[in-house]
Amino acid sequence: MNNELRTVWWEPGAVCLIDQLRLPHEQVMVRCTDLAAVGHAIKAMVVRGAPAIGCTAAYGLALVAMQSKATDGEALLQELEQARQVLNAQRPTAINLAWATARMLRQAHLLSAGGVEIARHGLLAEAHAILAEDLAMCHAIGDHGAVLIPARGHVLTHCNAGGLATAGYGTALAPIRTAFRQGRSLHVWVDETRPFLQGARLTAWELQQAGIPLTLITDNMAGYMMRQGQVDCIIVGADRIVANGDVANKIGTYSLAVLAHAHGIPFYVAAPSSTIDLSLAHGDLIPIEERSPDEVTQLAGQLIAPIGVRAAHPAFDMTPHHLITAIITEHGVLFPPYDDDLRRCVEAGN
Amino acid sequence: MNNELRTVWWEPGAVCLIDQLRLPHEQVMVRCTDLAAVGHAIKAMVVRGAPAIGCTAAYGLALVAMQSKATDGEALLQELEQARQVLNAQRPTAINLAWATARMLRQAHLLSAGGVEIARHGLLAEAHAILAEDLAMCHAIGDHGAVLIPARGHVLTHCNAGGLATAGYGTALAPIRTAFRQGRSLHVWVDETRPFLQGARLTAWELQQAGIPLTLITDNMAGYMMRQGQVDCIIVGADRIVANGDVANKIGTYSLAVLAHAHGIPFYVAAPSSTIDLSLAHGDLIPIEERSPDEVTQLAGQLIAPIGVRAAHPAFDMTPHHLITAIITEHGVLFPPYDDDLRRCVEAGN
Repeated sequence: MNNELRTVWWEPGAVCLIDQLRLPHEQVMVRCTDLAAVGHAIKAMVVRGAPAIGCTAAYGLALVAMQSKATDGEALLQELEQARQVLNAQRPTAINLAWATARMLRQAHLLSAGGVEIARHGLLAEAHAILAEDLAMCHAIGDHGAVLIPARGHVLTHCNAGGLATAGYGTALAPIRTAFRQGRSLHVWVDETRPFLQGARLTAWELQQAGIPLTLITDNMAGYMMRQGQVDCIIVGADRIVANGDVANKIGTYSLAVLAHAHGIPFYVAAPSSTIDLSLAHGDLIPIEERSPDEVTQLAGQLIAPIGVRAAHPAFDMTPHHLITAIITEHGVLFPPYDDDLRRCVEAGN
Repeated sequence: MNNELRTVWWEPGAVCLIDQLRLPHEQVMVRCTDLAAVGHAIKAMVVRGAPAIGCTAAYGLALVAMQSKATDGEALLQELEQARQVLNAQRPTAINLAWATARMLRQAHLLSAGGVEIARHGLLAEAHAILAEDLAMCHAIGDHGAVLIPARGHVLTHCNAGGLATAGYGTALAPIRTAFRQGRSLHVWVDETRPFLQGARLTAWELQQAGIPLTLITDNMAGYMMRQGQVDCIIVGADRIVANGDVANKIGTYSLAVLAHAHGIPFYVAAPSSTIDLSLAHGDLIPIEERSPDEVTQLAGQLIAPIGVRAAHPAFDMTPHHLITAIITEHGVLFPPYDDDLRRCVEAGN
């Protein structure tokens, strides 16, 4: 990603976002000046990508604290708890949202004893810390994951798990970026990722900005490229990784994992430890967000199907751990069985 | 399909087509009044679907004969041979195009001895026969294939192998139509089929017209639906079936077949014998048409990717016979090994 461009940042009185609905054609900033605006930006996918949503929600709670008229710590805590529930309800699948708001609330509990003013500034500092740590985690994922990228070859990715999905640098794109910086001769197949086209709009743009060679394909071409021997590995991000290593990620990820398995191609998931949810034993317990069918029947406001046609829109799917070759985290590359290593990752982050 | 609507038909001096680029929002007829217009309509996918292309090309040659200024049979044959080459060059993957033009040329050779006028009328009659036979084959495919459709359940289809891809009634949609008429309680998952959206635009429309329940999904949702136990069988059409039963069909078909295999779901191919090409031993010999990358980076004229991004556009892929549960033809349902039965099918048609 262009170093000047940020995904989410704080300005006094506002959570600022690059409007990802308008990329790549326009680079427009959105200033969210209240909780409702932050919630809407998350729901409508102005900002998307599990880690970026987490950072946005953290700043959203800092904003609530800043704007609070509470005069004592208890009242502020109640307000923040309500705001947390509002934010968590916007997107059910990605765990980073609930992770970030829980972390903010823990900090609020610690700080509120010191009074409202201390809590306000402490919460803003915590949101800044979440953002800075996310960026650092992405770079660490890049360092750990780069060794998995072949010296010459084709990497396939789905959706956007890049700088725009995080505080910067990305998760799935981080090993690609680092390997490219190390001089490896890469080419990336970018799945367009219907219905929201995060691949065509966001990943293609990020890679183009970074000068990394890419070719855009429709989602249904990935299997063809694998059979042609044109895919050396697949790297995707994650919206939630549960205790046994099952992964929820953007719809289409599961199909790619099955195809990779059938072709003997390594299938990697890259995510920071904030994506890990040990409270769920396996992936079938992850709530899968159903979004509006209009996002399937329409494209940029244009109807592409007959009027009145029914459509389904599960926004995510679940990939069982046995289809995942390795999970790349900021603490290192995990191989199956994942259970113990995932637990150690979470403990290392606490 | 609405009984009044035809895919391709003859009017004096013109090959007439429903403009499939403008469906489902507009029903517009295109009149092709010379060979160049017919060739363009095939190339630009005003008409698409292997059997429909075959019918169109047959009428195209009848049109050439009608407009010919040749005064003897030999001159007419030369003109028709040149026209055949023009038409065959428009779409390389579907074999029905070459099959139909070869059949027209065989007829021309027989008739030209009787003089230009007899050849002209004989060739138009032959094109009419190709159309009528295609329609009859589709109904026979429906009759044979309907027994494979579960009494209650979910059928998934890709692209459009419906009435619009044939003279009417369809190939993959024929068993669905027939089973539905027989009172079975069906629901069809319709893959939208990027980049051309034949599923969203054409199959959704055809099923809607026929009153058959459907739900539109993006191509990358198919694997999710299979894992959820929501797909009982898959039926697709074919652009070419070679001697060992390998099948070329719309890009994305191969991925569906791999996914079906991984989930133990029957995967059926429905096609008339005119789709069979015994001259090729296996599917890797089938030429795969590469279309313009603009069809991937744009959607209905709207750019969906950054300017300057490279895209790939293989329009078809190849599904190996070991992933195909059965092939439904007008002569019956074929099961593996396919070699002998495919040969018998072609012989039955000669």
